[in-house]
Amino acid sequence: MEIDYSGIKVIGFDADDTLWVNETYFRETEEKFADLLEGYETKNKIDQELFKMEMKNLELYGYGIKGFMLSMIESAMEISNNQVSQATISEILNLGKRMIAHPVELLGGVKEVLKQLNGKYRLIVLTKGDLLDQERKLERSSLSNYFHHVEVLSDKKEENYLNLLDHLKIGVHEFLMIGNSLKSDVLPILNIGAQAVHVPFHTTWQHEEVSVEEGKYTYLKINQLTDILKYL
Amino acid sequence: MEIDYSGIKVIGFDADDTLWVNETYFRETEEKFADLLEGYETKNKIDQELFKMEMKNLELYGYGIKGFMLSMIESAMEISNNQVSQATISEILNLGKRMIAHPVELLGGVKEVLKQLNGKYRLIVLTKGDLLDQERKLERSSLSNYFHHVEVLSDKKEENYLNLLDHLKIGVHEFLMIGNSLKSDVLPILNIGAQAVHVPFHTTWQHEEVSVEEGKYTYLKINQLTDILKYL
Repeated sequence: MEIDYSGIKVIGFDADDTLWVNETYFRETEEKFADLLEGYETKNKIDQELFKMEMKNLELYGYGIKGFMLSMIESAMEISNNQVSQATISEILNLGKRMIAHPVELLGGVKEVLKQLNGKYRLIVLTKGDLLDQERKLERSSLSNYFHHVEVLSDKKEENYLNLLDHLKIGVHEFLMIGNSLKSDVLPILNIGAQAVHVPFHTTWQHEEVSVEEGKYTYLKINQLTDILKYL
Repeated sequence: MEIDYSGIKVIGFDADDTLWVNETYFRETEEKFADLLEGYETKNKIDQELFKMEMKNLELYGYGIKGFMLSMIESAMEISNNQVSQATISEILNLGKRMIAHPVELLGGVKEVLKQLNGKYRLIVLTKGDLLDQERKLERSSLSNYFHHVEVLSDKKEENYLNLLDHLKIGVHEFLMIGNSLKSDVLPILNIGAQAVHVPFHTTWQHEEVSVEEGKYTYLKINQLTDILKYL
């Protein structure tokens, strides 16, 4: 299959780590979480335990900062064998609140790309975080005007994308998805017959890591978002 | 204005306390929360403090069980002056998890109404809880087949509804909203020129209470959902 974007009418942009920095703040918060609990376990073990707790709770909580906060609290109690102080739990709440309130840091070239594509395509934001959180980030980013609207999916699997295209009345051949996650933004999109562009971010959450068989999929991989302008 | 539904093509159903029981579980959990903290304050004061904490955090957390859990934890620490035990915090986490995992209890006549309206109108679920949570409830409710899709709004104000109708390409005169909250499901809808039906639930969250000037608005108020079948 050749890469051919001539039929594309709608472009979906992933938000976190595609339009703006996100994973970095999770990593920084994990560092601080490990510092808070350093009396109980090694840093490495704390990291592992927190990730295990997040995975255990993922089905219940879904993605986003609030679920992460709840998993940090539960993990802190488990790691410390219920010895963690109330002051530490308060500090964990504060870490999470600071993440929610964090200023939005746009990735390079984002504004330029959106400016160029705006008008030529219908642009939507497609993310799986928390709706309020993502709407807030979009507002703070001053990018709202470039986007038709924001869609938050509870997950980014084939089924979620098919439902979305159906209710927005977009044909699969009219749709291009751009994002940093092979697992969430690229592979499911290719599997439903739409097209996708992969723009890797330097940090990938362990849960988003996936291995792909060489040559199985055809998609464009670019180093920076502005590279897409050569193709659209 | 006469009530005239002849131009209606799309019906939005609120979910919590319109299709299924919800507020009741929050009230039950608040009761249990007060029991857990009864050594520190009166039940009444605990209720008030928790509500104040929820309001303080609402802008940050939005609606839904996860934010409620985080506010319970923060409130427990504040009410107890940081004396609350780790066991109590664990129990608060469990209370929240049990809410998330709670079986769905449909309200009377819901299935019958949806069966009748299905095919004649496009039916969508319009809610402001947590997306994952609402999708899960819809799935457990066995009502999925009646609905075109679920929309979760970060809030239910005029602006949110206007954006939604715009991106779904629905005219205001084609839209009817049915829900239990005057504040969220009825008044903003009437203010944008669409129509709304009020089906009160026996319990209303304090934050959803609103007073309406007599005669200012024209809308249908019904005692039970099946009553709507006389009009549609």
